Amino acid sequence: MVAVLVDNNYGKTGVRLLRVKRFPDRHELDDWSVDVSACGDFEDTYTHGDNRNVLPTDSMRNRIYAMARGHGGESMEQFGLRLLRQFLDDHQQIMHLTINLSGVLWEHIEAAEKSHGTAFCRKTGERRLARVSGTREQVSIASGIEGLAVLKTSDSRFEGFLRDDYTTLEDASSRILSTEIHALWSYLNTEIDFDSCWQQARVLLLERFATHQSASLQQTLHVLGSAVLEQNDAIGEILLSLPNRHCLLIDLSPFGLENDGEIFVPTETPSGLIEARLKRG
Amino acid sequence: MVAVLVDNNYGKTGVRLLRVKRFPDRHELDDWSVDVSACGDFEDTYTHGDNRNVLPTDSMRNRIYAMARGHGGESMEQFGLRLLRQFLDDHQQIMHLTINLSGVLWEHIEAAEKSHGTAFCRKTGERRLARVSGTREQVSIASGIEGLAVLKTSDSRFEGFLRDDYTTLEDASSRILSTEIHALWSYLNTEIDFDSCWQQARVLLLERFATHQSASLQQTLHVLGSAVLEQNDAIGEILLSLPNRHCLLIDLSPFGLENDGEIFVPTETPSGLIEARLKRG
Amino acid sequence: MVAVLVDNNYGKTGVRLLRVKRFPDRHELDDWSVDVSACGDFEDTYTHGDNRNVLPTDSMRNRIYAMARGHGGESMEQFGLRLLRQFLDDHQQIMHLTINLSGVLWEHIEAAEKSHGTAFCRKTGERRLARVSGTREQVSIASGIEGLAVLKTSDSRFEGFLRDDYTTLEDASSRILSTEIHALWSYLNTEIDFDSCWQQARVLLLERFATHQSASLQQTLHVLGSAVLEQNDAIGEILLSLPNRHCLLIDLSPFGLENDGEIFVPTETPSGLIEARLKRG
Amino acid sequence: MVAVLVDNNYGKTGVRLLRVKRFPDRHELDDWSVDVSACGDFEDTYTHGDNRNVLPTDSMRNRIYAMARGHGGESMEQFGLRLLRQFLDDHQQIMHLTINLSGVLWEHIEAAEKSHGTAFCRKTGERRLARVSGTREQVSIASGIEGLAVLKTSDSRFEGFLRDDYTTLEDASSRILSTEIHALWSYLNTEIDFDSCWQQARVLLLERFATHQSASLQQTLHVLGSAVLEQNDAIGEILLSLPNRHCLLIDLSPFGLENDGEIFVPTETPSGLIEARLKRG
Repeated sequence: MVAVLVDNNYGKTGVRLLRVKRFPDRHELDDWSVDVSACGDFEDTYTHGDNRNVLPTDSMRNRIYAMARGHGGESMEQFGLRLLRQFLDDHQQIMHLTINLSGVLWEHIEAAEKSHGTAFCRKTGERRLARVSGTREQVSIASGIEGLAVLKTSDSRFEGFLRDDYTTLEDASSRILSTEIHALWSYLNTEIDFDSCWQQARVLLLERFATHQSASLQQTLHVLGSAVLEQNDAIGEILLSLPNRHCLLIDLSPFGLENDGEIFVPTETPSGLIEARLKRG
Repeated sequence: MVAVLVDNNYGKTGVRLLRVKRFPDRHELDDWSVDVSACGDFEDTYTHGDNRNVLPTDSMRNRIYAMARGHGGESMEQFGLRLLRQFLDDHQQIMHLTINLSGVLWEHIEAAEKSHGTAFCRKTGERRLARVSGTREQVSIASGIEGLAVLKTSDSRFEGFLRDDYTTLEDASSRILSTEIHALWSYLNTEIDFDSCWQQARVLLLERFATHQSASLQQTLHVLGSAVLEQNDAIGEILLSLPNRHCLLIDLSPFGLENDGEIFVPTETPSGLIEARLKRG
Repeated sequence: MVAVLVDNNYGKTGVRLLRVKRFPDRHELDDWSVDVSACGDFEDTYTHGDNRNVLPTDSMRNRIYAMARGHGGESMEQFGLRLLRQFLDDHQQIMHLTINLSGVLWEHIEAAEKSHGTAFCRKTGERRLARVSGTREQVSIASGIEGLAVLKTSDSRFEGFLRDDYTTLEDASSRILSTEIHALWSYLNTEIDFDSCWQQARVLLLERFATHQSASLQQTLHVLGSAVLEQNDAIGEILLSLPNRHCLLIDLSPFGLENDGEIFVPTETPSGLIEARLKRG
Repeated sequence: MVAVLVDNNYGKTGVRLLRVKRFPDRHELDDWSVDVSACGDFEDTYTHGDNRNVLPTDSMRNRIYAMARGHGGESMEQFGLRLLRQFLDDHQQIMHLTINLSGVLWEHIEAAEKSHGTAFCRKTGERRLARVSGTREQVSIASGIEGLAVLKTSDSRFEGFLRDDYTTLEDASSRILSTEIHALWSYLNTEIDFDSCWQQARVLLLERFATHQSASLQQTLHVLGSAVLEQNDAIGEILLSLPNRHCLLIDLSPFGLENDGEIFVPTETPSGLIEARLKRG
């Protein structure tokens, strides 16, 4: 028997990068973590320890830092695209490359009722995502968000579901809906104002989560995904992954108390998980 | 030889509590984690397995939930104080109690340019802290904040320090200063508007971090702590714990590039750690 | 524009389960976390909030607990298979199901030089994995391991690699090789003694990691994967994912000291990442 | 008002250190994380930004690495003691120093039925702890363990406890007892074979946990602590901190099933927490 190498990839993960953009009146920050993963002609190192085609992942990291310099105006997606093209130009042994970026968001501190130019406070716990992947012929770009924790205390129900021998859950005409939005949407082309698209999508996701009447977290997912596709013609597809972070109403009757939707235990595990991919029809 | 029990405490940690306060026009959330720890007459369970004085920690948790009901107007500190007093009233075997509360902050989602009444988004990664501890005779209350990540790209230097045989660091006339503020301040009395005090302290910590000229993180700590003491006469003492999250300038000269304060690696470990306690003079 | 639902799945994640198997002379433990994810006829809940086909994830959890009872002799894989088949028997709306199991390993405590029958200590940090997925017609079973941290201080080199403009790494004729083995192998049939196969694979992965001469982590991966395929005819394919946890030799020359392979900084990020899939040829 | 600096300390945390000890027939590893914290004459940097007494934490880190070299035979405690003494010798401005060490344990991989000399697998998830602290006049040394997860399925009960209005827990004549041992014991002198003391204490903690009849986790704590004090005359005091990781029996009666101590949910939060300090009588 000989083991056959079906597919393989290698690269560097977790390259942390803080870029300070020093404008005359203020500074701005990019605070990113970058992953690079390459597919290509690497079989010989697996089978014979022949490294002649293997660019060290250390060199990948160095390239990320060197290429970040002097391009403070670009978005995560543009940086990823530039990086991908340069990698593929310089390295014929690489056939396909994936670059994942994840960004922490900082905002200027308010001091004396105005935004301070060079001092920052980390924003909400969410991260901005970008993914650029492709070959010399074709590239796809996706943007996203993860860890955007949202919760609504009205306009959410879960009723009329299927019951089996293991069902003890009762219909809920009103329940807390708590999730962390994880979304990744892909663009139909590469000539996009990625920063403003991302901001618009974020605002929309929050708005629709707030305003719609939810009959299930699945329906909520569909409302969110459809809205993003409707808002922006340049988006072809969106993947949403929504954990259902259950908030359990506590039974206070042993203590002679009612609990009419006031006191809950928010739980981490187990959670529901709803995932779907929507595309432009 | 007989082992002597020097001191002991027991309790419940990580009691998760979500309280929905349903006002006519909007809802508000308390999202807390509560720890209770009791000292008292418990030696017999240690030495003889005699549990007659041991209130189960399960009962402590139940009490937390039951007491949370119907008191939506109160602050973390007030809840802790009420809980402490009721515990001590009901349980003579408890001599001293400590209650630690840690809160996640949610804000109303903006939808159609106004704040939505019943939909929420989690705010910055920081947590609000409260600690109530004491006996039947004396109680102390502290408030605080943890995980408030801040960073400044100017007005920070570190020069003129002591050098020894292991010193390779050079004077920095300008450096990035990045930390996570962890503060705990104690009040001189219990009749306080805790929510507004906390908000004011938070705003002040951010403002002073932004505006002062830092010659060392120690000096920054002193500026922050002094400001909180000056702002509020009811605060007697403040403890600050500030990690120095080093951002290392990357040497791009091997690639023929300058790097004049643009590209950094933010590091998690190792970090500096500066801690001090300041009191009203 | 109408958004089209391309694909979707839903289920429960993180169902924690501790099963105590009470044999006459000793107890044994299963300590598992179970995820269930279903694909099927669920479009109506997404598009219209019609939940008639939606079995609550709460019922999925209940089923996991109920079905775990009374089957202490079975492996993770057998439990997953039984669960999958019963789900598909009971629920025509489900077309495809994936069940992921992850187990913590406990071993009996040694007391008075023999294994104590009912007291346990958690073993190494690794977790045992199982994945059962499929339809009414076809099922596939995979087993694996994650978080198995290994390190070798000899017999590892990295030389003769490709160099580009960003390469500063030098050839290493000897380096520390540190990784966490993450492996998932799939079986060609379902009639397997899964527990002993898993134990044999684990022993083999450790042995080969220890004994082979590594010219690259890629080659190490190939050695590990080939060995598992060679050992067990019932295994058709193996996926390995190996982070390269770099251990950096510290330059002590500023302090007048040599450092000949003695003092290193182990790093978490960034790390290399090598992934490949091998199949029986 | 002038803010008064009550007390302060500063130092470096999370200095990661891997030391390879290359013996002729085998290698051994020290894999440590080191924290250093200094108290002393540092007020001027807080109040005036005058850094003349401030040794950079970067120099502290360098010293740790430089001093680790060439001392492969020593224990964590001995390294800490040597480091403390050298710091205090070189730096008159430091009055008191605390050095905390935390070690990951590796064991040699078994290959071909014998221990391989240069390949390692990480052991159980626990960490070994050491703390050395003191002044030029007096030093104290403590050793410990954290994260040692243990669980027993028999010989544990919790009965006859105090009941109040919030008690719903029922007497348990048999329950699962699950905890993570966190222990820190201090020595009466500094001339100790720390490695073998630690090994003996670890074995004893496991043995006693396994064999004793537990009427409460408090009693278990007392049994463990007393045993360590009895075993080793050089130990003066021991602090134990034991979370009670509740394993909840699942009610399967809605599904027509009994559950006689077989299926449990292990929980992370909330947990009980039992802490006590025992000293030699």
